[in-house]
Amino acid sequence: MNIEQLLSQNAKSLKPSVIRGLLGLVQQGDIISFAGGMPDPEVFPRELFAELADKVIREQGKLALQYGMTIGWQPLREQIVAQMAGKGVACGLENVIITAGSQQGLDLAARALLDPGDLVVVEEPTFLAALLTFRNYGARFLCVPARADGLDPEELDALLKAHPGPRPKFLYTVPSFQNPAGSTMPNAARQRLVEVCREHDLLILEDDPYGELNYTAGPLSTLKSFDTDGRVIYLGSFSKIGSPGMRLGWAVGDPALIGKMTMAKETVDVSASVLPQAIAAEFFKGGHMPGQAKRYVEVYSKRLDVMMEAVQREFPQGTALSRPKGGFFLWPQLPGGLDTVALFPKAVEAKVAYVIGTPFYAEEGKGLNCLRMAFCSVPEAKIREGVARLGKVFREALVKA
Amino acid sequence: MNIEQLLSQNAKSLKPSVIRGLLGLVQQGDIISFAGGMPDPEVFPRELFAELADKVIREQGKLALQYGMTIGWQPLREQIVAQMAGKGVACGLENVIITAGSQQGLDLAARALLDPGDLVVVEEPTFLAALLTFRNYGARFLCVPARADGLDPEELDALLKAHPGPRPKFLYTVPSFQNPAGSTMPNAARQRLVEVCREHDLLILEDDPYGELNYTAGPLSTLKSFDTDGRVIYLGSFSKIGSPGMRLGWAVGDPALIGKMTMAKETVDVSASVLPQAIAAEFFKGGHMPGQAKRYVEVYSKRLDVMMEAVQREFPQGTALSRPKGGFFLWPQLPGGLDTVALFPKAVEAKVAYVIGTPFYAEEGKGLNCLRMAFCSVPEAKIREGVARLGKVFREALVKA
Repeated sequence: MNIEQLLSQNAKSLKPSVIRGLLGLVQQGDIISFAGGMPDPEVFPRELFAELADKVIREQGKLALQYGMTIGWQPLREQIVAQMAGKGVACGLENVIITAGSQQGLDLAARALLDPGDLVVVEEPTFLAALLTFRNYGARFLCVPARADGLDPEELDALLKAHPGPRPKFLYTVPSFQNPAGSTMPNAARQRLVEVCREHDLLILEDDPYGELNYTAGPLSTLKSFDTDGRVIYLGSFSKIGSPGMRLGWAVGDPALIGKMTMAKETVDVSASVLPQAIAAEFFKGGHMPGQAKRYVEVYSKRLDVMMEAVQREFPQGTALSRPKGGFFLWPQLPGGLDTVALFPKAVEAKVAYVIGTPFYAEEGKGLNCLRMAFCSVPEAKIREGVARLGKVFREALVKA
Repeated sequence: MNIEQLLSQNAKSLKPSVIRGLLGLVQQGDIISFAGGMPDPEVFPRELFAELADKVIREQGKLALQYGMTIGWQPLREQIVAQMAGKGVACGLENVIITAGSQQGLDLAARALLDPGDLVVVEEPTFLAALLTFRNYGARFLCVPARADGLDPEELDALLKAHPGPRPKFLYTVPSFQNPAGSTMPNAARQRLVEVCREHDLLILEDDPYGELNYTAGPLSTLKSFDTDGRVIYLGSFSKIGSPGMRLGWAVGDPALIGKMTMAKETVDVSASVLPQAIAAEFFKGGHMPGQAKRYVEVYSKRLDVMMEAVQREFPQGTALSRPKGGFFLWPQLPGGLDTVALFPKAVEAKVAYVIGTPFYAEEGKGLNCLRMAFCSVPEAKIREGVARLGKVFREALVKA
């Protein structure tokens, strides 16, 4: 049977994601991969999760193994309300939906807000899966640069004033330890950003998966904490501190939008997996979040230092590089017309992998000299070795160019 | 901020699902609810699941708590291949994607196949969440009756021959113990149905959540077992025998379609929750499926007998009722112009709940005299009591009419 001729327009346009393709490389034995943005599984609190799973199934199994409410497991939503209070956000249960990872928060928000042709404001570069998600609903993009200090509110203001066309549906931003650029907005800029969006009546989708992985930024305020009129939808994730394999995230926002996301979720998957939700609720309730975050911060901040130092030593003269204050990623920009897409096969030949820069840009042709390197899940000696391999590939290419 | 004005056309059209709304009633203490189609949590193998969760996290936690492949946890996909072999279906790993419940299989298949205005052939009545899902992608419907023996292939043949317009994208059918009608297709009709669909080059979406809950039907062949050319997409579920709260299902079909569903899933939720997938793989591998199915069959088949007997005794003369050979549901059709929508508040007043018949029909105005009653999760004495309450409501209404 010819399936191709039956596919929807959307399915015809779908291409496999670059990152998911690259993840396959991680399995190839001797490649040092800086590609996948995955937490270090050595740091997973396996003993704790095993105990919590056992406890939850034995004590609450009749509910935790049963169909659950689409909006989420109430004890977990209560814990999210408490977490948000700790971030200066006063919210109630009606503001919180549990999603299958924050990726599903992006998908449900896009489904609830976007019609084909709608405009979304994004940073450039920005999280590539967000671009793919918004594109799946037919979005077009307005771009504002992600600088070392992240999005500049005055640049956004100027962009919106200069833009004559239809009003964008929302701004998508990762203000802390951005993926891929590693950039972080200072608190003053965050406050100003919410003001600018209020002046332009622009909704904000604040994606904050890396917020707890803060190495040197000092205390950061979420955009949501400056929200006075339901303008900010905050997306949180259990993937970086808890377990990505449990697929849990949350969206916190205006009940009208949370309600529509909930209705959309009914036919998408009925609810997030209930057993992991019950485990996560116990994880928060037991106060395990801060200690587990601290363990990751200790491991990752050392790896960041090692990778920064190695890239500065090994990469070609003229490489631009900002030091991220948290998160998973380094975002070097190579000099002399070096093209990370063209050089990728050479890197794999040299047994090292990264993510090419181009898919993080909404506009074609940008980011060719950029690459994303995750330092989080590679041991220090391997970081040094992998960066040395990569530096050699780039230096040799520069000589030939 | 005014969120309403930002909503997508799809979000504006979303209404809360009738069943999910009714599920709220289950929590109200003294109501006997025949509404929700949920397995009996008393039969959940809690001890076993607690042991498997502990084992999986301790022995495979570095992978089972980590990001997983979008297409699914390979050991579970291997078990599904073995399960399908047991159903007469020869398939490989490339034919199998693990979904977040079979509901997500419906959503991903619809996303991969449907453009607004496309036609889908459905039984009437049919699973209401399937109708909602297909409608979300803009589907229109061609309807073929679900009779006591399910869909009649000759009726479908006549319908397709008489239909002049564009070719339908697929047929959606629940051949075994259908939701809501309880109907089951005989094996000969199944074989003929696949032939008819081949003659009309029609794709088949076979939804089989209740297949293991076979009380009196004898051995049944899946439609997929008659498939010779990749025409049947089979949707299986872990929800009825394993745990609905784990949200696991699988789609088995042509690799071209499975591939597109996988790509769509990347931005929907990255993957099904990995920990439950690893638990389910151990559940199948340990051979626990048949024994657990047997326990449910013993409990449910008695409840079916009790409910059949009670409905025949208590419901008004002229009620039409077929005896289901498996599954969760009874589907009485009331006489004398009785309207189950209008009578629903009276039933709740009498402390008993059901699901109204209308949302199971693609066409407005049908099913007003029908109701769906789940016998699976209500103890026998409560079934007798609930049916007596309901019979009284219906008999009184008939006298007044």
